[in-house]
Amino acid sequence: MNTFSYTLNAIDGAARTGVISTPRGEIRTPAFMPVGTAGTVKAMLPEHVRATGADIVLGNTYHLMLRPTAERVAALGGLHKFMNWPRPILTDSGGFQVMSLSKLRKLTQEGVSFQSHIDGSKHMLTPERSIEIQSLLGADIQMQLDECPAIPIAHDDARDSMLLSIRWAERSKKAFQNHASEGQALFGIVQGANFEDLRLESLTRLKEIDFHGFAVGGLAVGEGREEMFRVLDFTTPEMPSDKPRYLMGVGKPADIVGAVARGIDMFDCVAPTRSGRHGQAWTREGAVNIKNARFADDNAPLDPTSVCPASRDYSKAYLHHLFRTGEYLGPMLLTWHNLHYYQSLMAALREAIAAGKLVAYIDDFKRESGETLV
Amino acid sequence: MNTFSYTLNAIDGAARTGVISTPRGEIRTPAFMPVGTAGTVKAMLPEHVRATGADIVLGNTYHLMLRPTAERVAALGGLHKFMNWPRPILTDSGGFQVMSLSKLRKLTQEGVSFQSHIDGSKHMLTPERSIEIQSLLGADIQMQLDECPAIPIAHDDARDSMLLSIRWAERSKKAFQNHASEGQALFGIVQGANFEDLRLESLTRLKEIDFHGFAVGGLAVGEGREEMFRVLDFTTPEMPSDKPRYLMGVGKPADIVGAVARGIDMFDCVAPTRSGRHGQAWTREGAVNIKNARFADDNAPLDPTSVCPASRDYSKAYLHHLFRTGEYLGPMLLTWHNLHYYQSLMAALREAIAAGKLVAYIDDFKRESGETLV
Repeated sequence: MNTFSYTLNAIDGAARTGVISTPRGEIRTPAFMPVGTAGTVKAMLPEHVRATGADIVLGNTYHLMLRPTAERVAALGGLHKFMNWPRPILTDSGGFQVMSLSKLRKLTQEGVSFQSHIDGSKHMLTPERSIEIQSLLGADIQMQLDECPAIPIAHDDARDSMLLSIRWAERSKKAFQNHASEGQALFGIVQGANFEDLRLESLTRLKEIDFHGFAVGGLAVGEGREEMFRVLDFTTPEMPSDKPRYLMGVGKPADIVGAVARGIDMFDCVAPTRSGRHGQAWTREGAVNIKNARFADDNAPLDPTSVCPASRDYSKAYLHHLFRTGEYLGPMLLTWHNLHYYQSLMAALREAIAAGKLVAYIDDFKRESGETLV
Repeated sequence: MNTFSYTLNAIDGAARTGVISTPRGEIRTPAFMPVGTAGTVKAMLPEHVRATGADIVLGNTYHLMLRPTAERVAALGGLHKFMNWPRPILTDSGGFQVMSLSKLRKLTQEGVSFQSHIDGSKHMLTPERSIEIQSLLGADIQMQLDECPAIPIAHDDARDSMLLSIRWAERSKKAFQNHASEGQALFGIVQGANFEDLRLESLTRLKEIDFHGFAVGGLAVGEGREEMFRVLDFTTPEMPSDKPRYLMGVGKPADIVGAVARGIDMFDCVAPTRSGRHGQAWTREGAVNIKNARFADDNAPLDPTSVCPASRDYSKAYLHHLFRTGEYLGPMLLTWHNLHYYQSLMAALREAIAAGKLVAYIDDFKRESGETLV
């Protein structure tokens, strides 16, 4: 089917499990999207990304528009062909990374002008240009341009920012109608910092514009897990139940488990890939630093029962050695292990929700990880 | 069979094809051994090393004795288990890298004392200690400690050095008889710089000591391809025809083709792995630098007909992008491609020799690569 749709299969409390259908394949939700910033999930072969259980990956518009450029990717046949990933791809709008990575950036009603952090070249990102880029890349799920203020922020400033994002949402929608192909989807992004009235106003206006899905933006910016969950507690109940809900840039396993319990369907985060490159391995008992001397003689693999070769076929002593000697294979194996851990977590959450056993699953998770998910 | 043996299957001129049998598997010759310096063929998964067609990999005693140490590898079950490579492993003696990498080294009749280039710790490498380390690692093919002088060198100095290597060969043989397990092999190393009388004297003495195989050492140290081939021309005819012949540290494809034509059976070189990490891709038309701007829009893969995913499934434009952005996947894919190219070359050489068509194969190789192999 050449259309985009969401099917809700089961609910358990506020949590949901379902399937997003796209022309490039299905996305089982709750879903974790590995981050493929510059057209590659760092240190991973695409077939191994898929083998971990990923249905979709994320690409970063900011990085791709600078190198190799959206026009070049389009001329080469689109991002899927370019990176040898035939399944769904979601791209962000580029706005968040313009604000965090670029130089001499200037925000106006029109958009954001900035200089590349790579070569100083000047660029302008508007809602229209962001959608044009995402369509040139061929993204299956595209995101509106938004402004993502830091928390804490004054209420007046947060409302001004949220209203700017709403105007950009309207312009993004129009641009999407001009540029996008059949079966592609556009998501709106709820803003409003940590103010309940602003989040609900943002959501009301976004629902009026109408999108294929709704994201919660502006969280995981340092406000802490408890505050993030508090915002979700008053936001997700008002989000449409017949559309996917995406919590942007989240998170650690405990963040994901808590947000799934609050009704979120989609996640992306650099945590498993970045921490894997830095020697951190996620396990059910939490994260361990493989460079720690206690692993030098540990002949056990990270998970002898895993179906993932990276988790099963190499001892912790070997992984320790690879990181101590700065070998490529260390980041390669730990990234693979971490992505498999994340996808196993998502599969377990989907299964628990389908079976109506999410509470018991979360109790186990809290006990094993020592995390609080209030 | 729990023994080490060599079977010569066919000859074509001076070239040979055969099989080395070891308790850990067969090695089809002529064979190229990817270099796995610190217990990993850099940027490669071991299953992909195998998939390229490699029957054996090489480990570096110098690196492994310093990190993680031979005693630790032995306690963890040996190098094969440690690096998840169940097939044959050859280790060098460590001598060459002590002389090229370590600090404050001092050569005596007893051996070489040196300080680690990593942490300054003091070590002594003797023929006995080298074999002890190689046996602790569990190497299937072990190499005598030798001295490897630079070329050019005065005849008297070259003879003194060669005779030192002969005394070390005798001590290595005794140590091997004390340390090694059934089915493991020890190779002697022919030295004598570029002097015919010294090479032949070295070989005569090594044959008297008797080894499972014979290596040609001290070449590929800057003397040039023509001079290397000249040394092989007078050395290989005197090497035992019923034992494997190994040309150490060689080489580029044209070096290998020329040496195979002169009767060499085994090779190792960092060229395919190191150049892959630096953006160089080997093809039948020679090496190309994928970072070159002309590849930015080249939508063709390196080899669309290859069975190697790295050669077939990614465009040169994508590989170019990966190297321009410093992504891990660039070195991963080009190393894989290069190792597959090298193993395909070895397979083609074996096939040509078996069919008695090596001359025609070499003519094609010279025409396509533009290399001279006089």
